[in-house]
Amino acid sequence: MSTQRDYYQQLRRLIDERLATVIERDEPVSMYEPARYVLQGGGKRIRPVLVMLACEAVGGDPIQAIEAGVAVEILHNFTLVHDDIMDNADTRRNRDTVHKKWDSNVAILVGDELMGIAYKTLLNTKTDRLHELISVFTDGVIEVCEGQSYDKEFEALPSVTEEQYLMMISKKTGWLVAISAHIGAIIGSADARCTQALLSYGRHIGRAFQVQDDLLDSVAEAETFGKPVGADILEGKKTYLLVKALQCAEGEDLELLRAVASHNAKREGLATQVRALYARLGILEIAKKKIAEDTAAAIASLNALPDGNGREMLVWLADMLLDRTN
Amino acid sequence: MSTQRDYYQQLRRLIDERLATVIERDEPVSMYEPARYVLQGGGKRIRPVLVMLACEAVGGDPIQAIEAGVAVEILHNFTLVHDDIMDNADTRRNRDTVHKKWDSNVAILVGDELMGIAYKTLLNTKTDRLHELISVFTDGVIEVCEGQSYDKEFEALPSVTEEQYLMMISKKTGWLVAISAHIGAIIGSADARCTQALLSYGRHIGRAFQVQDDLLDSVAEAETFGKPVGADILEGKKTYLLVKALQCAEGEDLELLRAVASHNAKREGLATQVRALYARLGILEIAKKKIAEDTAAAIASLNALPDGNGREMLVWLADMLLDRTN
Repeated sequence: MSTQRDYYQQLRRLIDERLATVIERDEPVSMYEPARYVLQGGGKRIRPVLVMLACEAVGGDPIQAIEAGVAVEILHNFTLVHDDIMDNADTRRNRDTVHKKWDSNVAILVGDELMGIAYKTLLNTKTDRLHELISVFTDGVIEVCEGQSYDKEFEALPSVTEEQYLMMISKKTGWLVAISAHIGAIIGSADARCTQALLSYGRHIGRAFQVQDDLLDSVAEAETFGKPVGADILEGKKTYLLVKALQCAEGEDLELLRAVASHNAKREGLATQVRALYARLGILEIAKKKIAEDTAAAIASLNALPDGNGREMLVWLADMLLDRTN
Repeated sequence: MSTQRDYYQQLRRLIDERLATVIERDEPVSMYEPARYVLQGGGKRIRPVLVMLACEAVGGDPIQAIEAGVAVEILHNFTLVHDDIMDNADTRRNRDTVHKKWDSNVAILVGDELMGIAYKTLLNTKTDRLHELISVFTDGVIEVCEGQSYDKEFEALPSVTEEQYLMMISKKTGWLVAISAHIGAIIGSADARCTQALLSYGRHIGRAFQVQDDLLDSVAEAETFGKPVGADILEGKKTYLLVKALQCAEGEDLELLRAVASHNAKREGLATQVRALYARLGILEIAKKKIAEDTAAAIASLNALPDGNGREMLVWLADMLLDRTN
């Protein structure tokens, strides 16, 4: 296992090194200082690692996929900068968010610029499937914006169905993970069968990843998590946990959850109270089961791929995400 | 002349028709309703017409360039939606801006989505120079963001040099006009000489266009202009007029202009007062001369192009922009 963690860390280091040089200009300072701040904020770099591993898993050279991986990571960071404005989030990865450290105008503009830099970086990829590559990436931009839009719409609704929730997160979070696998497949010149397998893998771990995120909002330790624990509850976010809890709860419990969902609950002590309720209703177990199922389905998708280090790493990655604490 | 205006209107109609269908989805409603509102807000559609005419001027079929033209127009509209948030602008083309009609979060997200749709539309272009096409477009995104960033930085400075001003507007406004000509050249399979000629044309009319915009802020009629006249003065924008006036003025005039530039002037009656001062100092004439010079230089660049309708239309377009009132 430690060999696989080492390889992951090795790819992650390469990605961090590339992210440190990808912004080539210094002026205007009001743009490039915060843009560097964003890209050097750390993070697990799961998406770019996935791009590289997917490429390797179909017989390609992972290094050939690094520019595209970095492009996806920049795209991901652009969405975080803009989402943090919309969500009034002050902290991300234990640091002030851009709109908090500078202001909203800077955060809007830096996000926009990062999207431009993402495409510029993507264009450094050597591939004879450029049109397909850029199409998949662009669909990612569109879907992730739609996902955020649904998320904001849902915040204003008293409740949403599990189906609506899953549709929303497949766009907002799942899509970029799924296209990471897809893009790696394209760059590695995968055939249709392997591409489908990687897409399926990406979709499943994308969903597992988000449900895990929802779960961590309820069970993580604040310091490890990098952002305030329980924020989703206070924001009345329609998380997987809340959606499932609304299905199971009765009486006073149901009343409380409805109040959370419609932003009518007293905020004092609310996060602790709702977290306890989730535990009591068995929602944490339901979420864990969902995550485990999606992880298993992701790993099963990999059967279509040739044996080798790339495929083994993808299995390891899926398990690693299952066990993460932030 | 009327034939040329007819042809321009014909292309503009085609562009408006395409803009009316380019958004294919209806949900999430909170995203696509405002996105349609933006794209159906009218406008001169100068950039997409320019893309089509540049393609025609190098011997290409203008219809082949319509998707790319529409892509540039969408990109332009994305920048307007985000700039209007940053500039606190309530009105654009005689209608409420997106953040005014909906809210800032919607405007941020709709802008982001429009950028995705712009790339998706660009990818519909039939060309064997796809990498070059997308590179030029992407540089447009980056430069226009830098331009806006400089513009906001300059707002906070007591003064800027003419050189700084010209650098800023070449990015903020000129660039998208210049790449319109460049993109048309690429799609029309222009050789290096014709591409250079069109780029030079685009850069010059881009600058003339912005200085004209600055001038209109001082001389236009509110109803024709579509946004409040004198807004630049009240915002302390470092326009061409203010930069030149700061060079010429003395005594009390200079004091007033410095107060405008540093946001220290009393706002009551300020726009009228500064507009009168510009007239008295001859700044309006200086601006008109600058516009005329750039227009002449743009037209001279066209000498490298083959004779024909495309080239004649580009001459006509440059003159038309010189005479515009909004």
